[in-house]
Parts: sequence; structure tokens; C-alpha cells
Amino acid sequence: MDVIDIIVAKRDGGELTPAQIDWVIDAYTRGEVAEEQMAALNMAIVWRGMSRAEVARWTDAMLRSGERLDFTGLDRPTTDKHSTGGVGDKITLPLTPAVAACGAAVPQLSGRGLGHTGGTLDKLESIPGWRAQVPPGEMRRLLGEVGGVVCAAGGELAPADRKLYALRDVTGTVESIPLIAGSIMSKKLAEGTGALVLDVKVGSGAFMKTPAAAHELARTMVGIGNDNGVRTVALLTAMDTPLGRRVGNALEVAEALEVLAGGGPPDVVELTVTLGREMLLAAGMAGAKDPADALRDGSAMDTWRRLIAAQGGDPDSPLPAAAETLEVPAPESGTLTRLDAHAVGIAAWRLGAGRARKEDPVSPGAGVTLHAKPGDPITAGTPLLTLHTDDPARFPRAVEALEGAFTVDGPDERLPLVIDRIA
Amino acid sequence: MDVIDIIVAKRDGGELTPAQIDWVIDAYTRGEVAEEQMAALNMAIVWRGMSRAEVARWTDAMLRSGERLDFTGLDRPTTDKHSTGGVGDKITLPLTPAVAACGAAVPQLSGRGLGHTGGTLDKLESIPGWRAQVPPGEMRRLLGEVGGVVCAAGGELAPADRKLYALRDVTGTVESIPLIAGSIMSKKLAEGTGALVLDVKVGSGAFMKTPAAAHELARTMVGIGNDNGVRTVALLTAMDTPLGRRVGNALEVAEALEVLAGGGPPDVVELTVTLGREMLLAAGMAGAKDPADALRDGSAMDTWRRLIAAQGGDPDSPLPAAAETLEVPAPESGTLTRLDAHAVGIAAWRLGAGRARKEDPVSPGAGVTLHAKPGDPITAGTPLLTLHTDDPARFPRAVEALEGAFTVDGPDERLPLVIDRIA
Repeated sequence: MDVIDIIVAKRDGGELTPAQIDWVIDAYTRGEVAEEQMAALNMAIVWRGMSRAEVARWTDAMLRSGERLDFTGLDRPTTDKHSTGGVGDKITLPLTPAVAACGAAVPQLSGRGLGHTGGTLDKLESIPGWRAQVPPGEMRRLLGEVGGVVCAAGGELAPADRKLYALRDVTGTVESIPLIAGSIMSKKLAEGTGALVLDVKVGSGAFMKTPAAAHELARTMVGIGNDNGVRTVALLTAMDTPLGRRVGNALEVAEALEVLAGGGPPDVVELTVTLGREMLLAAGMAGAKDPADALRDGSAMDTWRRLIAAQGGDPDSPLPAAAETLEVPAPESGTLTRLDAHAVGIAAWRLGAGRARKEDPVSPGAGVTLHAKPGDPITAGTPLLTLHTDDPARFPRAVEALEGAFTVDGPDERLPLVIDRIA
Repeated sequence: MDVIDIIVAKRDGGELTPAQIDWVIDAYTRGEVAEEQMAALNMAIVWRGMSRAEVARWTDAMLRSGERLDFTGLDRPTTDKHSTGGVGDKITLPLTPAVAACGAAVPQLSGRGLGHTGGTLDKLESIPGWRAQVPPGEMRRLLGEVGGVVCAAGGELAPADRKLYALRDVTGTVESIPLIAGSIMSKKLAEGTGALVLDVKVGSGAFMKTPAAAHELARTMVGIGNDNGVRTVALLTAMDTPLGRRVGNALEVAEALEVLAGGGPPDVVELTVTLGREMLLAAGMAGAKDPADALRDGSAMDTWRRLIAAQGGDPDSPLPAAAETLEVPAPESGTLTRLDAHAVGIAAWRLGAGRARKEDPVSPGAGVTLHAKPGDPITAGTPLLTLHTDDPARFPRAVEALEGAFTVDGPDERLPLVIDRIA
């Protein structure tokens, strides 16, 4: 096999053969295909796309580049959720214990944030003592005893994807639906879940800006999952405005605790319950306890406390808070009709909640609190947002990110929370 | 400046700014932009193309990455020719001394062959003692005293192009008209010629298979040359069948000597004279001696002998010959209507005349002799081609390359030798 033939075939709009895909992923993982050759191939894929058969094989080749966890033999079905990332998306936090409290096991391998969307591990690491590293053997024990585990993926899972993602990140080749689908699905298939619910975000704060693009990504991923024996369903959900009222690491943990205590913002509760029901359904547990009940009766909170404690965290410890705050007042009175997710995400990132490079630390207390959501009445001069940071020198650029981020008394263009379902 | 922004701008179909182009070429040359990032940008350029302004700036940035030779103050005008490469294209060999004999100075920086087209330096190196390395200071002396110099480009000329070409070669990004034009023209502008004639080959043995693609390349290069103060003209010429009757290194030198002696195949003579006249015209030497006369009266041959001797070669030394030959008989009797340039090029390459990798040696004696050209009558069983090699194990794959390479009594689809002129 010659890598130049493969690059040229894709460059000229051809379909790669299974043998070509298997060879190029394996040779790249072993270092035989150079980074610059894979970069050229990636850009050709951004240009020409991949057929359903090509994406399926590409994903499978990345999956086979490493180990695949196996939780068969556990006394309950496994089911998981993956979100394509949004602003204020803390859903994994209340969802995992809620679904576990309904009798499923949730093996959730999560990531850290990069850019304006946060990462679940960063959020949980704001809980004193909690650690993201769990050896695969201990994962099985936690799934059996607690019903859930949220942890970092080890280097032995889909190493080809790890290497490829780092390359795409520096070569302008992230934005490709087949490459995104292959990356997500190879990791999710490697984690050994039996069922999977994909939360594909749509809107300014999401990776997919339009329902059409989100649809295509969702269809591609659902196809790959089901082809690989994992019952997979996708929901398209709104990311035009942040989820809930808090954006940041400890801030989002605090909001998740409100939801686990039976309260919290209605959109976070609705999405948690909707995704939880889909996870149980996909796991073949149609008659199981309802996640809404698990939130109401305290069983989700009990599971949360066990889950956090099992990974070294202290569920009773106070959460870290940022040293400084700044109120952003409402510019006029009326009805808030738009609060842009992307702008709030960038502001939170600039305040220290996110990172620009993989090796950067994040601030646990930094972020943004929303005092109104689209549809709410606001009064000129009263606080609309509160910005939180450890370093007040960060305020000006965060405020700058919020310029033009809200509309008062404009047309109501809010997306429905759940836009579509792809099974 | 951020290289990812530049890659993404081109990927999304945008036009790069002069500042972006200057920065990316400079940062790549210095190693600050990584090979994989440049590979992704190259593939995006293959996809999206470049505007005339972008190509001009790209070329200029590569030119400015190194030195630019300067032959102003020489007692005669400088003029040069560049061919995009073909099979049996030994034109530089008779052309340089013929034009020098007419009073111009020809600073010809040449390359080595890669793939199925030969390189001028490989051909000249079959002359015992001849050396391709000439320091820039000696170039000026040779141009003044002999009127011509054919040598290898030093590392100080357009180093960005050298690095970029090596990268394109291994990443499937050679086939891009703006990148080809920028590569050729940055080297040709760096060599300090005042006028330039481009021989853009069209046909199966050429890089550009169609007149439309050749036209676009020619127009792009002529634009860059004239924009940079070098009077530039391009001819589109036929490469559907090999030039002349000999393909290989020493074989082509022998044919060039026939032309310099006033004989030789009519197509080689015609193209030499036509290109020579264009070179003189572009140099502003309309009333100069005619290159046809220089071939006829022996002055071109005298200049050749001085030119070869000045670079250490012995013009009287016998040329090397291959150890083994094999006749390929005509398959039937009739009129030969097609003899495919690409197939003959591949056969010569497989016999040892060319190289697969830059570091491979070439065989001076290997190649192909043609006993008939399209339009000639042939008789079944008499020799049509002679194959020359040092290693008879190479014959079978060379013969294989020639399968289907000739047509007898087919339609006459020969291209005219000079197809078009772009000024």
C-alpha cells in the first residue's frame, strides 16, 4: 500500500477501500504514515467527504487500534450518553446518577473542555478530592456497586483517534462530519456500553450551527452505532442559549446539585429527564423507574453521593468560588428574547473557566451566572449576568465578548429544547 | 498570525491576504509552521485554488525566502527557457549553445528527473567529467565568457520552494496549477534571467494532459513573470509522442550532438529553433543571428564544446552505452499513427534512465531508441524500438509498459508540435 495513492484517490473524489482504510489508520498509529501525509488526507476528507461505508470502516479501524472495554456479565444493562458539547451543558452530572438510580449502569468516559465549551471532567474536578482516573478493572466494580462511573478514557482506548484528533486540532481539519462522527463513535464504542444516546447540539453555542448539519452528524453516528451492535439514538437539542443559569465548572456542579435535590432550572431538568428516559429505553428497560421520580425522591442524589465518594470526592465539601465578581446590568427594560450561547461561552472561557491549549489549567470558580433567560422580563440597570473570575484583569475582555449578545423585545426565535429525534 | 486561521480561511474558499501569505511562507521556511500544517494548507489550495493576486504573492514570498541572482551589468542580455517536462525532451542541450551563439547569455538552472520525465542535469552528467555544481560567482564569469551555463540551483535560491516541493511530493499535493506555477516561477525568477520562455507540454507524456490545463498553467506563469519584471512568453507544445528518436540520458546527449552538427530529427530541430527565436525576441534581440543558422554554421557546436569543457566535461569523450539491448518489433505492417509518450517514458524509467526516489542513481546508458515516429510506415517484424539497459532483468517490465503504446493505421490524432503561444 502506498499512502500517496490513498491521498490522491480521496483528493480526486474516490471512495477508499476497506483495505486502504485499515492500512492507513494502522500505519498512521504506528508512525509509518507521517503526520503531514495524514494532514493532507484529512483535508481531502473535509473536501470530498466519506460514504457511509467509508465512515463505518474508518471508525472500526480506529476502534481496533486499541482495546475495547467489555461489561457483559454485569447484573444490569449498560447505557451511556454523549453530548457534542455546549455552553452550560452539565447534563451528565445529574443524568448519570439519575439513570443509575433507575437500575442501569452508566460507563461514562468523558473529556476535558477545549475552547468555549466546558468538559465534564473539569466540572467534576472542582469537587475537592475527586479524581478522573479510574483503572478499567475498577470501572466494572463501580458500575456493579454504584451503577455509574464518570472518568477519563485511558490511552489504550482508540489510540488512533487520540493521535488523529490532536493532528486535526492544529491543521484546520476539525470541521468534517465523517471525521467528527468517527472520532466520537470510536471512543464511545471502545468504552463498551450496550446502548448510547447522542445529544447533538444545534445553535450558536454548538459545533453544528444548523439543524441540517446536526441532522447529518446525528444520522451518521446513529448508523455507525447500530452497525456496531450498540443500540443508538440521537436527539437534536437547542444550543442557541446556555443550558440552565450557570456556566463554569463549580458553578455548574452547584446547579447540578439543585437538580439532584429536586429543583433547578426547568430546561436542565427537562433535558436530564428526556435523555434519561431515552437511555433506559435504548437499554431495553422500558418498564424501569422514571428518572423524573429518581430526581424527586432523592435516590438520584444518594447515587450521586456514592458516585462522587467512590472516586475520592467529598460530596459535602463546599465548592470553590471565584475571588471576584462583576455584575453586567440589563441594557434596557422589556422581554429578553435572545441571550447568545456562543458569546456567554467565550466570556466564561476568558474568565478562566476554559482553556486555550490542552495543557492549560482551568479555574474551578470562574464563569457566568444568568439572572434571566430568553422569555423573561428584565429591568434596565438591574443585574442580567454576574461574571466570576480569580483575576479581575480578565473582566474587560469577557465584557467585550458579550457585546451584542442579548436582544430585548426582538422576535422570539428560540429553538425548542428538543428539536428532533433520530433512531 | 495564527496558521490555523490561514488554513481555515483557504479551506472555506477565502482569499489569503498578502500579509498572511508572507507570514506563512516565512514561518514555514523557519520551521515555525509545521509540515502537517503546510500539508493541510496545500491540500486546501489544491481544492480551492488561488487568485492571480494570491499566486503572485505566494511566488514572491518564496522568491524572497532566499537570494535572487543578479546578472545586470553583463555585456549581453540574459534569457532562459523552462520546460514543464516531457519524454525525450533534450531541447535545453542544443538550445542553450545555439542561443548563446546568437549573442544572448543563458543562465539555465536545471533539475534532475523524477518519475518518467528526464532531467537535464542527469543527461549532461552522462558526459565524462561534467559537473552540475557551479558557484554563483563563476556563473557570471561563464555567462560572460561562454554565453551559457547549465547547472544545479544552490540551496540559497528559493529555499521555501525546495522545502515545499519535497512536502508536496509525499502528500499528494503536486497537482495544483497555482502551486506548480509558484514553484517553477520562484526558482526561475531567483536565477536572475531578464527574459523567459516557458515550454508548457501537453499530452500523455506531460504533466498537463489537456490543452485547457496547459493554457491555465501557461497564463498563470506568464502573468507572474511579467508582474515581476521578467519578459515572459509561453509556448504550448506537443508531448503526445516522445521528442526526437532517443529517450534516456547519454542517448539524448547523442541526439543533441546530431542537432548541433546540423542534422538530427526534424521535431527536435524545429522546437530548438522556435524556442531559440522566442528567447531572443523576449530578450529584445529581434535583429540577432537566427538560431537555425547557429546550428547550420557550427557556431552552436563550438559554443557547446566550450560550455561542456567549462564545467569539466570532455566534449570528445565517447558517451557511455548500456550493456544490453532488446529489439521490440513492429506488431504489424502499415502506418504508425500513435506512439505513446507516457508509455515510452515509463519504459525508459524502468530500464534505469530515471529514478523513483530523489536519492536513487540513474543509468547513463539506459533508455529507448525509436526506429519510427507517428506518420512513418512500418513493417511487421522489423525493429520498432530498441531498449537499452545495464540489467537485462529490467526488460520484461519495460516491455510490459509498452503494451498498447502504439497504434497502426489508426486515425491521425497527432498534436501540432507548437499548439499555441501565450504572451
